[in-house]
Amino acid sequence: MSTTFSSYNARTGEVLGTLTASTAADIDAAANAAAAAFPLWQASSGAQRATLLRALAAGLEAGREALVALADQETALGPVRLNGELDRTAFQLRRFADIAERGVPFEYVDDPAVAGAPPAGHPAMQRWSVPLGPVAMYAASNFPFAFSVLGGDTASALAAGCPVVIKGHPGHPQLTRQTWELIQQVLAAQKLPAGLVGLVQGASNEVGVQLVRHPAMAAAAFTGSTRGGAALAAEAAARPRPIPFFGELGSINPVIALPAELQAKGAELATTLAGSIALGCGQFCTNPGVVVLLDVDAEARGINDAFVQQLAQALAGQNPHAMLTQGMRSNFEKGIAHWGEAGASFVMHEVAAAGQPPRPVLAQVGAEAFIAKAALREEVFGPSSLVVRAASVAQALQVLQAVGGSLTVTVWGAQTESSDAQALVRGAMAIAGRVLFAGVPTGVAVTAAQQHGGPWPSSTRPESTSVGDAALARFLRPVSLQDAPAWLVARQGRPL
Amino acid sequence: MSTTFSSYNARTGEVLGTLTASTAADIDAAANAAAAAFPLWQASSGAQRATLLRALAAGLEAGREALVALADQETALGPVRLNGELDRTAFQLRRFADIAERGVPFEYVDDPAVAGAPPAGHPAMQRWSVPLGPVAMYAASNFPFAFSVLGGDTASALAAGCPVVIKGHPGHPQLTRQTWELIQQVLAAQKLPAGLVGLVQGASNEVGVQLVRHPAMAAAAFTGSTRGGAALAAEAAARPRPIPFFGELGSINPVIALPAELQAKGAELATTLAGSIALGCGQFCTNPGVVVLLDVDAEARGINDAFVQQLAQALAGQNPHAMLTQGMRSNFEKGIAHWGEAGASFVMHEVAAAGQPPRPVLAQVGAEAFIAKAALREEVFGPSSLVVRAASVAQALQVLQAVGGSLTVTVWGAQTESSDAQALVRGAMAIAGRVLFAGVPTGVAVTAAQQHGGPWPSSTRPESTSVGDAALARFLRPVSLQDAPAWLVARQGRPL
Repeated sequence: MSTTFSSYNARTGEVLGTLTASTAADIDAAANAAAAAFPLWQASSGAQRATLLRALAAGLEAGREALVALADQETALGPVRLNGELDRTAFQLRRFADIAERGVPFEYVDDPAVAGAPPAGHPAMQRWSVPLGPVAMYAASNFPFAFSVLGGDTASALAAGCPVVIKGHPGHPQLTRQTWELIQQVLAAQKLPAGLVGLVQGASNEVGVQLVRHPAMAAAAFTGSTRGGAALAAEAAARPRPIPFFGELGSINPVIALPAELQAKGAELATTLAGSIALGCGQFCTNPGVVVLLDVDAEARGINDAFVQQLAQALAGQNPHAMLTQGMRSNFEKGIAHWGEAGASFVMHEVAAAGQPPRPVLAQVGAEAFIAKAALREEVFGPSSLVVRAASVAQALQVLQAVGGSLTVTVWGAQTESSDAQALVRGAMAIAGRVLFAGVPTGVAVTAAQQHGGPWPSSTRPESTSVGDAALARFLRPVSLQDAPAWLVARQGRPL
Repeated sequence: MSTTFSSYNARTGEVLGTLTASTAADIDAAANAAAAAFPLWQASSGAQRATLLRALAAGLEAGREALVALADQETALGPVRLNGELDRTAFQLRRFADIAERGVPFEYVDDPAVAGAPPAGHPAMQRWSVPLGPVAMYAASNFPFAFSVLGGDTASALAAGCPVVIKGHPGHPQLTRQTWELIQQVLAAQKLPAGLVGLVQGASNEVGVQLVRHPAMAAAAFTGSTRGGAALAAEAAARPRPIPFFGELGSINPVIALPAELQAKGAELATTLAGSIALGCGQFCTNPGVVVLLDVDAEARGINDAFVQQLAQALAGQNPHAMLTQGMRSNFEKGIAHWGEAGASFVMHEVAAAGQPPRPVLAQVGAEAFIAKAALREEVFGPSSLVVRAASVAQALQVLQAVGGSLTVTVWGAQTESSDAQALVRGAMAIAGRVLFAGVPTGVAVTAAQQHGGPWPSSTRPESTSVGDAALARFLRPVSLQDAPAWLVARQGRPL
């Protein structure tokens, strides 16, 4: 039995096309084809992997015009952003190509025999890494290139030696299909099995659930909401053979601004922050959803009040584009309403004209209420931020503890060492995967030292990252070889 | 409400003493004390951690006589083994002291700023590691020193900067208490908080469940049965804030012996294997529970038949000591009975005299039955092994696939490269954390390249190891610092 689902124009809601959802048999076939491609791909050299990844980057660039136009229709993210995102996606593919070519997936620890009795004596050992197997990759809505079909998860999994089965995001299903067809052309040109990168699509949760339950899947990578990610993570753990689930979930990314810093350059920081809040219509997992201000005395209160006004003004000048889907728009309105119900007061809450994109929202609440009410700590996906007024550094630390886990925390004003700065940095590092001391959390560099993943609920595996060079390590596991024969040692870490 | 539980003489079943089980309030207090000790310990230097770990090693050695005597009463493992195990435990503590002193927990990736627009340009970043927080450590029954109170989990967690709350194993409760008291003396002498290493004890599962549920716990490390580990892993995942659960569970450790290897040195291998099967009364997680023989032709069948007889003879010469507990003895008898019910035929199955330790058991079954019946693939903890007769290399690979996950696989006869050797190595690496090409899997070296942890069901996190240098990495998570101030950079990776 096959069902259909639609592609929509994100700006107008108009139906752009109708697609056939993957059936249980389709999902089974994609998973089995990935498993069948695994032996060949795990034994591939770094050069082979690099050749594939570079051809995928080139294919993406060659198809740029049509892909960006389609992405713009399905997501409303606009050609400037989408071209930039495509560049980043090609950059990522080439970066993982370089990593594979340098032999990173094949690095091993050589541990020659030590004569004598244990515990000091031991046999010859080598600690290799082997790819986990087929990876179920759940595409995100908000990055139709960089966290979708050919995004960082696919690039790092292929570089690690793992086939991939993509669960396309229903927010951009035609773009998903076209990007996947591009991959199929590259695979065919390189005489690689079509099953090395599979695709399943559909609008129901059932497609994703069936995929994570499939016995051939060895790992899952996910970018999306906390609710969806937690549900799939539970599925991964409940399998007869549990598999690792690398979920990058929701995050509220507190920005803590010290009064002295706001006094020195409040206007500039307000402009920067407003741009970050409204960027991409606020549809970033690193969107600064909470701004913590320290009302340590009357002077600080005055500075903070002024900053809130500056921020509201700067936000008023922002004109967010349409949201990715009608459902997200509706969730945004609901999230804002929850803030009001939980006692936040609105500094800025314009009602958008019918059919127009949302206006930025700024609300404010005391730290005690924020700490007491979970509803105030839920991610509101969209162009909004909640100012939390804390009476002291100690209370600001309680605010961070109440947040519990976040992809990022930003601390403005910790450039000089002090006990307050130390305490805030300690509190920030305790709950975040990335701590910033300047600028804003949106914009995640694809680089060696990146960490995109923080404590629960911001990710399911805070020891891993979905962006940056270390993303590859998610899909490898160590195997020690004891007294390995010369012919195996000669492979220098490359699995058979 | 407090309840009591008993310490037993493992050889006679006689009650050695009565202990008070930890109450819910005790568990709460231990967890909170560990949380209170965390800020100090995460900010400690490598030298401080090394000083503590070395003093613990010295304390263990100083207390050797009394500790080994008590351990022998509670476990029946005998003084030779127990003295060796104490040596290994002290070696581990000193090894992690060296690792901390070398600064391994503070290693970071330095990623200077690159000018220009993204994706190539990026801000200055450093990728540090921070300790997770208090670790709930579940001691094992079968290594009363090396995988108990002062074992590898405690040593690596302390080296990583994490406090520990130990859930003592009820199989050696007095030894547990005495070892913990030794720790308390060392902590007091070094003016460290008592809560840095806490202890909870009891005979009911409830104690361990309460500990893993405690909000202050940031991770759990476990060595024990698949059933117990899976139950606690589910608890860790079901917490409001899930925590990583590093479980090292049951394993059946297949040994694949090729006919040519058995023809060349079958008698010698039979003796070695019998020693491994009966070692420590078979109470090792690396005990070789399955021996796969390849009946590829009539000649091979003859060689294999002869080897089975040699193995039975060698086992007949083994005299296992008493098992750790009466419950384990009873489970061993049940496990052996299950083999018979599932169609295995016994090559050797002597009934021990009343009150005597168990006799070694050797059974045999065809590969098809082994693949079809899950009961034949369950770990039987004790001095026993199941010979599986496969008709071909292909069928031996199916046997490995049916096993699914194992701490080790041993391949005898792969010293020369051939397509069969390649296929078997590929199959072994697919399901094991350690692959051996000589010797037997019992005896796990504490070294740089060790990997003690394999795919499910042998462990819950096959990307991690509970033995060897990499065990420390379990208790760290990365944090990227973006545009970090000079005063923070000057700490060179040491958390505040």
